Amino acid sequence: MRKIKLVLEYDGTEFHGFQVQPGLRTVQGEIEAAIRRLTGEGVRAHGAARTDAGVHAQGQVVHLETCSSLPIERWQRALNHRLPPDLAVRGAEEAPEGFHARYSARWKTYRYALRYDEVRSPLRDRFAHWVTVKPALPAMAQAAASLAGSHDFAAFAASGGKSENTIRTVRAAGWEDRPPYLYFVIVADGFLYKMVRNLVGTMWDIGCQKKDPEVMALALERGDRRLCSTPAPPQGLCLMEVEY
Amino acid sequence: MRKIKLVLEYDGTEFHGFQVQPGLRTVQGEIEAAIRRLTGEGVRAHGAARTDAGVHAQGQVVHLETCSSLPIERWQRALNHRLPPDLAVRGAEEAPEGFHARYSARWKTYRYALRYDEVRSPLRDRFAHWVTVKPALPAMAQAAASLAGSHDFAAFAASGGKSENTIRTVRAAGWEDRPPYLYFVIVADGFLYKMVRNLVGTMWDIGCQKKDPEVMALALERGDRRLCSTPAPPQGLCLMEVEY
Repeated sequence: MRKIKLVLEYDGTEFHGFQVQPGLRTVQGEIEAAIRRLTGEGVRAHGAARTDAGVHAQGQVVHLETCSSLPIERWQRALNHRLPPDLAVRGAEEAPEGFHARYSARWKTYRYALRYDEVRSPLRDRFAHWVTVKPALPAMAQAAASLAGSHDFAAFAASGGKSENTIRTVRAAGWEDRPPYLYFVIVADGFLYKMVRNLVGTMWDIGCQKKDPEVMALALERGDRRLCSTPAPPQGLCLMEVEY
Repeated sequence: MRKIKLVLEYDGTEFHGFQVQPGLRTVQGEIEAAIRRLTGEGVRAHGAARTDAGVHAQGQVVHLETCSSLPIERWQRALNHRLPPDLAVRGAEEAPEGFHARYSARWKTYRYALRYDEVRSPLRDRFAHWVTVKPALPAMAQAAASLAGSHDFAAFAASGGKSENTIRTVRAAGWEDRPPYLYFVIVADGFLYKMVRNLVGTMWDIGCQKKDPEVMALALERGDRRLCSTPAPPQGLCLMEVEY
């Protein structure tokens, strides 16, 4: 048995998220099917993050165990030939026995793209959330600044989440202004279910002056889900990188 | 009767080109259906260019005649509410009586995007043609330089084309290197069927040293279709602008 680590990129639009679900097209389902076509084995591809339906990835990581003797340098191309156009292997390497895509992950980076413009854009809005006004960046930056460090993110966990421990450590969080895009980039040791989209939704309300920037720090302190806004839609979100 | 000019943006992936075809989803069919839903009229939307299946547009132009009294400033939003996500109106204005989207057009700009990388990228290759090697830009630039001016482009007209006059005037043509993309941008008073893709396909062979850069000038001089290479695939092509 060997352990193999794969880096995946996907356009999440046509996937019902990462995780296998009966009768639905998922990233995990497609990569496992490609491995089956390559090696004949029915293996599990363990992902670093369970991205939601519509969420994209540039650097999702999965690991798998295989009995195949195919040299590691041939995995990427062999799998890419067996994967659909919206999913690709961007890297493949041997992983040590103790490696686990999810449990060994130290940091994950997500990016959320807002595009402000009067009119929607078919060439851009597949990978961004289109909004008609530019929100107030200073207020959003102030809110984002309160995320750094270790906090209880219970207020930003979707009701569907099952995490018992809701404390996460944020290494960096902030907004970048690259017209016509505003990017929110966050690096943390883990994320609760819908956490990034809940944070962006709340900061959106802050940027539109529906909420004070202090709401963010208050929500972290109190763990009060009523301080959290509607989550931002999935198409703006992309899992950029997983660090080990 | 009023004449209205619309600027359209579309993701060509899911369209069978611009022009109406029975039983197939086309840009012209969708825009005409949206106008019908808005005004109740069955009008023809005349396009500046008949983009092929899979070709994108950032600045396609159409005109139409209508009896509707809807103020011009409400057309864009009203139509966008009635159009699918991969097609949008980016501008709407009243046009003079003699205006014709196609016949009044003076210059059209197309851009072709090549993306060179070892691995395909689901987040990028919807709007670019992925290639695994970077071609020799100086040779391609030399070939592109011979396009400027008025020439008989018969050698680069697809066999399906019906143009009798194959002379076109190129105002500008050249390559831009913006890693990992190479963009070919061409501005001309008109284009023959598949002309840009045929030019890019030929320059690709030149960049890969399968053909000499002089082939381009020779093909223009002789009108010999045997000097033209396989057309580059549609997803790299985008109609950027139509000038009047």
